[in-house]
Amino acid sequence: MLRTHFVKEITPDLDGKPVTLAGWVHNVRDLGGKKFILLRDKSGIGQVVVEKSSPPFELAKELSQESVIQVQGIVKSDRRAPNGVEVSCTDLKILSKAKSPLPLDVSDKVKADIEVRLKERLLDLRRQEMQAMIRIQSTAVKTFREVLYKNGFYEIFTPKIIATGTEGGAQLFPVIYFGKEAFLAQSPQLYKELLASAVERVFEIAPAWRAEESDTPYHLAEFVSMDVEMAFADYNDVMNVVEEIMVNVLQNVAKHNQEDLAILGHRLPSISRPIKRVTYREALEILQSQGLNVKFGDDIGTPESRILNKVLEQDIYFIIDWPASARPFYTRRKEGDNNISESFDLIYRWLELVSGSSRNNTREVLESELRARGLNPVSFEFFLKWFDYGIPPHAGFGMGLQRFMLMLTGLQSVKEVSLFPRDKKRLVP
Amino acid sequence: MLRTHFVKEITPDLDGKPVTLAGWVHNVRDLGGKKFILLRDKSGIGQVVVEKSSPPFELAKELSQESVIQVQGIVKSDRRAPNGVEVSCTDLKILSKAKSPLPLDVSDKVKADIEVRLKERLLDLRRQEMQAMIRIQSTAVKTFREVLYKNGFYEIFTPKIIATGTEGGAQLFPVIYFGKEAFLAQSPQLYKELLASAVERVFEIAPAWRAEESDTPYHLAEFVSMDVEMAFADYNDVMNVVEEIMVNVLQNVAKHNQEDLAILGHRLPSISRPIKRVTYREALEILQSQGLNVKFGDDIGTPESRILNKVLEQDIYFIIDWPASARPFYTRRKEGDNNISESFDLIYRWLELVSGSSRNNTREVLESELRARGLNPVSFEFFLKWFDYGIPPHAGFGMGLQRFMLMLTGLQSVKEVSLFPRDKKRLVP
Repeated sequence: MLRTHFVKEITPDLDGKPVTLAGWVHNVRDLGGKKFILLRDKSGIGQVVVEKSSPPFELAKELSQESVIQVQGIVKSDRRAPNGVEVSCTDLKILSKAKSPLPLDVSDKVKADIEVRLKERLLDLRRQEMQAMIRIQSTAVKTFREVLYKNGFYEIFTPKIIATGTEGGAQLFPVIYFGKEAFLAQSPQLYKELLASAVERVFEIAPAWRAEESDTPYHLAEFVSMDVEMAFADYNDVMNVVEEIMVNVLQNVAKHNQEDLAILGHRLPSISRPIKRVTYREALEILQSQGLNVKFGDDIGTPESRILNKVLEQDIYFIIDWPASARPFYTRRKEGDNNISESFDLIYRWLELVSGSSRNNTREVLESELRARGLNPVSFEFFLKWFDYGIPPHAGFGMGLQRFMLMLTGLQSVKEVSLFPRDKKRLVP
Repeated sequence: MLRTHFVKEITPDLDGKPVTLAGWVHNVRDLGGKKFILLRDKSGIGQVVVEKSSPPFELAKELSQESVIQVQGIVKSDRRAPNGVEVSCTDLKILSKAKSPLPLDVSDKVKADIEVRLKERLLDLRRQEMQAMIRIQSTAVKTFREVLYKNGFYEIFTPKIIATGTEGGAQLFPVIYFGKEAFLAQSPQLYKELLASAVERVFEIAPAWRAEESDTPYHLAEFVSMDVEMAFADYNDVMNVVEEIMVNVLQNVAKHNQEDLAILGHRLPSISRPIKRVTYREALEILQSQGLNVKFGDDIGTPESRILNKVLEQDIYFIIDWPASARPFYTRRKEGDNNISESFDLIYRWLELVSGSSRNNTREVLESELRARGLNPVSFEFFLKWFDYGIPPHAGFGMGLQRFMLMLTGLQSVKEVSLFPRDKKRLVP
């Protein structure tokens, strides 16, 4: 057995007991002829002391940062040590020696820029901030699924290699599929609609791809898409699901990741149900009242959302009822007001986190919506044919995990919260 | 609101109450001048009766199978009806009309072959068997994650577009990545090893791709890979994790999917801990004792496993300690017996479900293992470089969700348990 305890399990009440630890050398200091090793493992960082007179002292001199070691020792309660306890080393083994100097300082004494961090990502991911991020992400996706299970949703896995583009064909990565051209799915949109038309309530957390040419803090070529689709439901029903997810994720992260939030120096946004719902038209009026020259049909982008965030005094809010022409062909128009659609975006401050809508469920309407967008229904027959087989009214939404993580960590770029980000210039590591 | 109740919520104690149902027309029968509609929704199938004298009777005549309808009616306790209850229709609305005849009979009166089923997959997925499969799959992946959370594993998302192949470059799908050639990951192997070297315990459930030329019941071009990697652990430790997953998944499916197993007519295999572990050399001896001409280094394939399954009288068993030469370069050799490796496969009857091992964690050993396989370490520098940064001993395994599902459903082909399978000839739907 490589260890008996994680470092955070070493408490003063183990005083005098022998233990075996294993982990990375976070740092080594010399003090009064002793070596103090900060040993890092999954649980955190603990202190090991190697006395000058002890047999492992010679080997301890060779230790480099990030080397992996196994330590046998005796627990010593000591008020001066971090957590009031340290381990006095009786035996030391180097399991993997790290070269020195390393290109990035895991202990964060020397800050590295984002390019170096992503190049040397393994070292970067060992930094406390990144470990906190990974733990918060694990809580977030776990909670997302729990809310959906509780509401009777089934997990699905849709195909990622597809014959044609979902919403036109722009920004797709081509794949050579047994000699034929195919593409990577930019969204599970059409498949999740079909599956909701078979088992009613479905969700998926999976990669999705967009060949983004531009380099922004909010876009990745490969991202994790969290998708939900629900039959016999409209956009109000799925906004309720979004609310339940948001409230539960924020609660669970606050509860289970307190230390991680402290490491990141991040305060979660406050949330209460119902989340403020402002219509697109109301949003326009607010913006006009603030002196902006915006009219029906214009997009509400980042600069406009910054103003809404301020005026509404809400960090998390829905903008609903967007112009029909601004949304994809599968979006249902609102009864009684044909220019707008049953659609919503959830905004965190000024960042779109979630986008959803009621969907069209008849072939005729879908064909007319395709034509209205200059698309040829014939090219969409692979999708339209299913609407001859009985498709219930349905609604759904998609959210990008990495953007969601910006809200949960306070970090600034989706590249930081993607373990190994992919963008136009980055294909390794 | 489109419904007040799911059909399975209609019980005799609601007798006399008005309800609203919504779902698919599973079947319509004429009996004594009445129409009996079998209405199917997420919960199952219930009976709606439309009296000849009632206003909706004319519309009911137009109903086709798989049309989506909304029914208002009064609950009538009736011993002759399925579940002792039916709903007497007072109002009927067609939400989506299905064409007639359909290319596949969802009610399973006419059996379709697998080619028709996969072509008309939306209809096929509405069949009771496929719905049962989807529900069992949801239980399985949920339980898989629960076991890992309980053991302190974090969920990860590794990149799927990669610059080079993991284990040599065979069977990869090329992607055109911003004008450059890249590939789809055939496994998260190297990335999960790196992440275990950052946060110790990680898992991922995600798509993976192999350009399989052959058409077998056990191979897909796109499959769902369930991957686990654990630092400061060896193959015995991760076999314990596999055991815990197997036991818990089988228990939970038995508990939560009783009806689904009945629909599929499937009996789950029995399991008890510890799962039988037979070494590769012991397996050879068994096979030799049964008259087979096998020697050290030979593969143990399906025909051989059929014999082992019978002789061992075990439906679920490990074969451990495989020849080192038969495993990938990252597999650790066994101390004291250099020809074999710390590796295992978990076999269900004669099908390999899981494959795992202790991993090499030093650059020198990895380089020598690459050379021993005729591979050039220089081409693997993208991976080897990280071993200069302190990599702990670690171990892990991968399992294919679709093969696992064959064990859980009794179905015969991984294509049946993949929602929209991808193989050499299939790219749609």
